[in-house]
Amino acid sequence: MAGAGGLLTVQQALQLALQAAVLMDSEDVLLEQSAGLRLASDLLVPQDQPATARAMMDGFAVASEVCGDQVVEQAVFAVVETITAGLVPQRVLQAGEAARIMTGAMVPGGAMCVVPVERAVLQSVAAEGVAGDSGIERVRIGREYLKPSAHILPAGSLARRGEILLPVGTRICAQHIALLAEHGFARVPVRRRVEAAVLATGNELVHHSETPQQGCIRNSNAPMLQSQLTAAGAIPRMLRTAQDSLESLRVQIQRGLRSDVLLLTGGVSAGMLDLVPQVLREAGVQQILHGIRMKPGKPLYVGVLQQAGRQCLVFGLPGNPVSSLACFELFVRPVLERMSGGVVAVPVRAALVRGFTVRGDRTLCQPVQLRLSEGQLLAEPVSWTSSADLKSASDANGMAIFEPEHGEYGAGELVQVISWNGWF
Amino acid sequence: MAGAGGLLTVQQALQLALQAAVLMDSEDVLLEQSAGLRLASDLLVPQDQPATARAMMDGFAVASEVCGDQVVEQAVFAVVETITAGLVPQRVLQAGEAARIMTGAMVPGGAMCVVPVERAVLQSVAAEGVAGDSGIERVRIGREYLKPSAHILPAGSLARRGEILLPVGTRICAQHIALLAEHGFARVPVRRRVEAAVLATGNELVHHSETPQQGCIRNSNAPMLQSQLTAAGAIPRMLRTAQDSLESLRVQIQRGLRSDVLLLTGGVSAGMLDLVPQVLREAGVQQILHGIRMKPGKPLYVGVLQQAGRQCLVFGLPGNPVSSLACFELFVRPVLERMSGGVVAVPVRAALVRGFTVRGDRTLCQPVQLRLSEGQLLAEPVSWTSSADLKSASDANGMAIFEPEHGEYGAGELVQVISWNGWF
Repeated sequence: MAGAGGLLTVQQALQLALQAAVLMDSEDVLLEQSAGLRLASDLLVPQDQPATARAMMDGFAVASEVCGDQVVEQAVFAVVETITAGLVPQRVLQAGEAARIMTGAMVPGGAMCVVPVERAVLQSVAAEGVAGDSGIERVRIGREYLKPSAHILPAGSLARRGEILLPVGTRICAQHIALLAEHGFARVPVRRRVEAAVLATGNELVHHSETPQQGCIRNSNAPMLQSQLTAAGAIPRMLRTAQDSLESLRVQIQRGLRSDVLLLTGGVSAGMLDLVPQVLREAGVQQILHGIRMKPGKPLYVGVLQQAGRQCLVFGLPGNPVSSLACFELFVRPVLERMSGGVVAVPVRAALVRGFTVRGDRTLCQPVQLRLSEGQLLAEPVSWTSSADLKSASDANGMAIFEPEHGEYGAGELVQVISWNGWF
Repeated sequence: MAGAGGLLTVQQALQLALQAAVLMDSEDVLLEQSAGLRLASDLLVPQDQPATARAMMDGFAVASEVCGDQVVEQAVFAVVETITAGLVPQRVLQAGEAARIMTGAMVPGGAMCVVPVERAVLQSVAAEGVAGDSGIERVRIGREYLKPSAHILPAGSLARRGEILLPVGTRICAQHIALLAEHGFARVPVRRRVEAAVLATGNELVHHSETPQQGCIRNSNAPMLQSQLTAAGAIPRMLRTAQDSLESLRVQIQRGLRSDVLLLTGGVSAGMLDLVPQVLREAGVQQILHGIRMKPGKPLYVGVLQQAGRQCLVFGLPGNPVSSLACFELFVRPVLERMSGGVVAVPVRAALVRGFTVRGDRTLCQPVQLRLSEGQLLAEPVSWTSSADLKSASDANGMAIFEPEHGEYGAGELVQVISWNGWF
């Protein structure tokens, strides 16, 4: 592991981490709390939808035959009922009859079509002086608007009982919530959220609300990872910062191993106080990998604890903030996605706004600004000095993956990119 | 407003709605709770960062001059101190001296550079049998690794006091949280979240957990809008469904008008029970627009209540679910964005996967599947029958805006698209 040649590639490391991911249990949650979660099973249509034919416009439901009228371009109907949404029609329309009807209301039997209100002319009984009609309203409609089935949503036309309403793995968004509500799913079976413990390590760390003494720094990784986990749909569990001592690490790591995932930051590089791998080994965590051919992020550690029928997947992230950010997005987020029942997405590529030269012999995760322009996804590298340079990285919203073997990248060339904030 | 020609275009309606949007107050929130919110002011760097020079690698900080050594390609240093992160160096390095140092630790005075541990060879005192040195360790380093300033992060190199750290309007993501933590912002000034009341109207609606009687349907819009609001960073306030009566509407609308935004669904088309505009007028809401040249979504209503130094912006959304969804994404989301201090994004365009014909004389919001492929954003229309067809719309993740004047759209042509779930 001393030379770059001996280290795993980013792809190898990602495959190993994904192979260790286990699917979360399924649980039923209230529909209103299901946004962002993934369905744990196919959901079937429980009943035909709509249950009865419904009007799609405000207007008149008219019978299949029209009564005689002198003006051949128009037909006149007697308005025999008013049906608002929520009511059940009281009669079946007969020839020459119409019912005033509102959007969403049940269409009466005998209706040929619904004619929008703006296409119908109501004949006031008084004005027209129609004799012998004892106050029955009539409506005059141009024959061109009498199209069979027009503006009627037939029963069963939206969904048939027993069909798949939504397939397993669907990530529930607003449109799915509407659909599930329409079909009466008050609770839905989903993969439960991953609980992920966050443990920052290092004697030099103070809480970000404190003023660090000389030689110390504020802990920026913990609140960052908390935010990344929440954005990824996981539940962060924030542990107290561990000191660089075996005792402190043992206590906090034992706490963290009770979660589905444990994210450590710091303590995994080659320094004399980087005790994390040792404590993990003692705790029964099996190392999956330690060290990758990537910049930043070289010291990445991944391990797994199997015990009592459950497992905890452990990520040792580097202490520098941009390294930690990059390793989370490259490795942890896809693993969380798989644990939650998602399919790990195919890599996305973007066109480089300008040429780029990769130095060194490791895969480079370079902060970039991603934007859409005229149907193209563009990536513009931000100027960035080191894995400690959070300020420059904050101008970015993603990163590009540059391979040193590739040589010079040209403007317009497609390069793999990763969005940092769940943009895709 | 009877003919399509008299209605506002989508662009006109959006401009009117945006003009009515007011900026939310600013408030200070805990950094950990700031994700997704926008900065209400520029934030300046409080202190130079880093405060002191820091080591970027585990290794040895070495003095600016080397002690005499017979091997000219290598220099040998006496290791006089060990500096772990969090400690303050106890001495200034003299010529020929080195300090063992860990990543993130403070670099001692007199250090020329930091040499990574894998580039240094420790000389065991016993093995080398160096005389008269009373157990002082020495480290041998190739001269090619003695590059001035190498692996040192100089004081003030990341950020200078008084510079802009993050500009007003920044939407706070994980990378910004890390940056703000590093600089000690325990609380940050942000635009407060918009509180948005949701009021579904209609005698036909039952809660989605209930079985509707004949003629009735489940309320799908309310949980959908709740999810859309949450995704847009607003706080949904769910009101009880209003009946189609003046009394019921008056009570619930008065409640809703206490929020920053009131979203109504149903009750705004031309039906006899569409009483919403009347009740809003009585309550002092000034109509901004009612009716747009769009499909679905034609009956859209927008109004504003100004009272006692505050305002409530009212959206009357159509009752059909896909209309409601589309009107939210097209009109409500940009308004929420502006109220929250965001800049309304320029329209995004995507390449059509296949040709498309627009029928009718209104702007069509067509559900599409958006995906990225080889640097291109692609839009594929889903087959979709009506604004009640939630099932087909659930296969989509956005919509394309088709203009009837444009005529036939060809495959590959760029068309304006809107993502439904905050994807961009």
